[in-house]
Amino acid sequence: MTTLLLSTPERAEVWGRVFAEAGERLLVDAADVRDPGEVLHLACWTPPADIARYTALKTVISVGAGVDQMPPLPEGVTLVRTLAPGIEQMVRDYVVMAALALYRDLPVYIAQSAQGKWAPMPAPDAARRRVGIMGMGRIGRLAARSLTGLGFAVAGWSRSGAPVEDVEMFAQDDLVSFLGRTDILICLLPLTGATHGVLNAELLSHLPAGAALVQAGRGAQLDMAALRAALDSGHMKAAMLDVTDPEPLPADHWAWRHPKVLVTPHVAAQTDAEEGAAHALSVVSAARAGHAIPGRVDPQRGY
Amino acid sequence: MTTLLLSTPERAEVWGRVFAEAGERLLVDAADVRDPGEVLHLACWTPPADIARYTALKTVISVGAGVDQMPPLPEGVTLVRTLAPGIEQMVRDYVVMAALALYRDLPVYIAQSAQGKWAPMPAPDAARRRVGIMGMGRIGRLAARSLTGLGFAVAGWSRSGAPVEDVEMFAQDDLVSFLGRTDILICLLPLTGATHGVLNAELLSHLPAGAALVQAGRGAQLDMAALRAALDSGHMKAAMLDVTDPEPLPADHWAWRHPKVLVTPHVAAQTDAEEGAAHALSVVSAARAGHAIPGRVDPQRGY
Ligand SMILES: NC(=O)c1ccc[n+]([C@@H]2O[C@H](COP(=O)([O-])OP(=O)(O)OC[C@H]3O[C@@H](n4cnc5c(N)ncnc54)[C@H](OP(=O)(O)O)[C@@H]3O)[C@@H](O)[C@H]2O)c1
Ligand SMILES: NC(=O)c1ccc[n+]([C@@H]2O[C@H](COP(=O)([O-])OP(=O)(O)OC[C@H]3O[C@@H](n4cnc5c(N)ncnc54)[C@H](OP(=O)(O)O)[C@@H]3O)[C@@H](O)[C@H]2O)c1
Repeated sequence: MTTLLLSTPERAEVWGRVFAEAGERLLVDAADVRDPGEVLHLACWTPPADIARYTALKTVISVGAGVDQMPPLPEGVTLVRTLAPGIEQMVRDYVVMAALALYRDLPVYIAQSAQGKWAPMPAPDAARRRVGIMGMGRIGRLAARSLTGLGFAVAGWSRSGAPVEDVEMFAQDDLVSFLGRTDILICLLPLTGATHGVLNAELLSHLPAGAALVQAGRGAQLDMAALRAALDSGHMKAAMLDVTDPEPLPADHWAWRHPKVLVTPHVAAQTDAEEGAAHALSVVSAARAGHAIPGRVDPQRGY
Repeated sequence: MTTLLLSTPERAEVWGRVFAEAGERLLVDAADVRDPGEVLHLACWTPPADIARYTALKTVISVGAGVDQMPPLPEGVTLVRTLAPGIEQMVRDYVVMAALALYRDLPVYIAQSAQGKWAPMPAPDAARRRVGIMGMGRIGRLAARSLTGLGFAVAGWSRSGAPVEDVEMFAQDDLVSFLGRTDILICLLPLTGATHGVLNAELLSHLPAGAALVQAGRGAQLDMAALRAALDSGHMKAAMLDVTDPEPLPADHWAWRHPKVLVTPHVAAQTDAEEGAAHALSVVSAARAGHAIPGRVDPQRGY
């Protein structure tokens, strides 16, 4: 009944305390494992090469928000992603900030500031306050609620197209209609085989002229060259990217200094160690009780 | 029963249509006034030098959001400020964006971008999400509601200290306690004799270390040199300014390129001409009916 955490010393310290308080056994160093057959849960960013030695392993828990970095796991091992309200709120905050910043032309004012130029633009057209969110999962729904509250007209696009309150939902094959009514496109998709490169030249071409992009999913979803072309042709007005391809962005990458682009270095969310540990505890007890594992990743869908 | 509008041709066109539809008489050029005694309402940014010729004048309506630019008016003339939901929502959006941007260290990331530097900062301390709003009027209350919804702990400071739902209110003489619990200070005060220079070195010194400022009131409220000193000493972490002293900011002003400062050129709100005209019509009919004038400025308080 042991959980093994392979992560940073800071995280190990917090998890150690949280597990001890709950009376659950945690090891934070593979060298401390006497009987590998005792390890039921492994929490890590990516598993070690010798994962096969943990013969009774039930789950691998990703310590980050995504699971796209995970290699295929041994047969019978369940992949789990961290569920932490803090992550979801942080990404919600980021995309709300980014949507407002792009709507209100902040990239233009930042570029003008570098030149000491005081030049108000005409106020944005209040009717062009249409946001479209790709990926209406835990984070997308939270973001939709805040943006609706601020008066944005919010649409969502997801695999299932399942209804969401106050949101105009579009199903997967209705992507073109979704894009056609979207002035600010927010990507909150998980990275899977199906979403790799999804933000490509063709997709961007279906946005109305003057549209903007907030990318808070995963870097490999966006064709950065296609974005650049859409910005430079004038088709798109701006973009704010928290995730990029590649990551980190090299110092001489065009996106750093493009006047229509704001880049942040993958900081929309950082997993709080307390919340991560609390979630891992909930995985341990669900597994023990034979209940559904919170955060279980569907192996078919990949998220 | 004439209203005289002295403003831009764009505004004159919209007001002309709105007044015509309502069957109200509007002139948009002083040269068209045959009988000055017929002009009851004057809408302008500042009144003309010969305002005394409008002997029956009842109101002067400011076409902007503030009235601080207005000189003393002739005895018996009521000063009116525009009430427009669009203005209030725009400023709300701006301060929500700015509060999130400062909380999440956007100025640091913008400065790093200029150097092509990918360097995530530690996530901000979730407990330091304390916003304090100076000026809890129409805009302050709207902003408080959105910020509370995003999980900020919101306090307000106003002349009266009148209670506001979900906001910890501080009365005028409780300024120091208000500042001591405020990590992000948002100024939404009108400019009056009492608020001129209110954001000075002493006030900033009462903020906790690492605090940030959003200035969306009026330029003359902030001592820019005191802000600079507080930023450079490390006491304050950042500021976002929509209004400055002077305005426009000269091209070589330090604030344009300070790594901890974001400047926008007084664009938090722009009065929508339709909404301004609709408000002016409501002033005309209230005056006719002898009702309270919507947007009447209290001459004693100056707002
Ligand atoms: N930038 C950052 O720091 C950061 C931090 C955290 C998360 N993220 C990103 O945000 C993503 C979303 O997180 P979440 O917790 O909201 O995930 P989630 O709850 O699993 O939701 C995923 C959403 O994406 C939709 N989706 C998946 N594949 C799709 C496809 N091929 N076509 C259309 N829709 C598809 C799903 O549709 P259904 O509803 O039909 O299943 C669902 O609505 C993460 O995977 C990660 O990439 C980024
Ligand atoms: N940047 C822009 O583009 C832009 C656009 C629009 C407006 N603004 C600024 O925003 C300001 C606020 O607009 P509003 O419509 O919300 O005004 P409002 O409804 O008149 O509210 C003013 C608030 O300030 C408080 N106040 C006034 N003098 C004070 C003093 N000496 N000490 C403490 N509190 C004081 C008032 O207290 P009480 O509640 O006790 O009366 C009230 O809460 C405008 O005056 C303007 O300066 C800026």
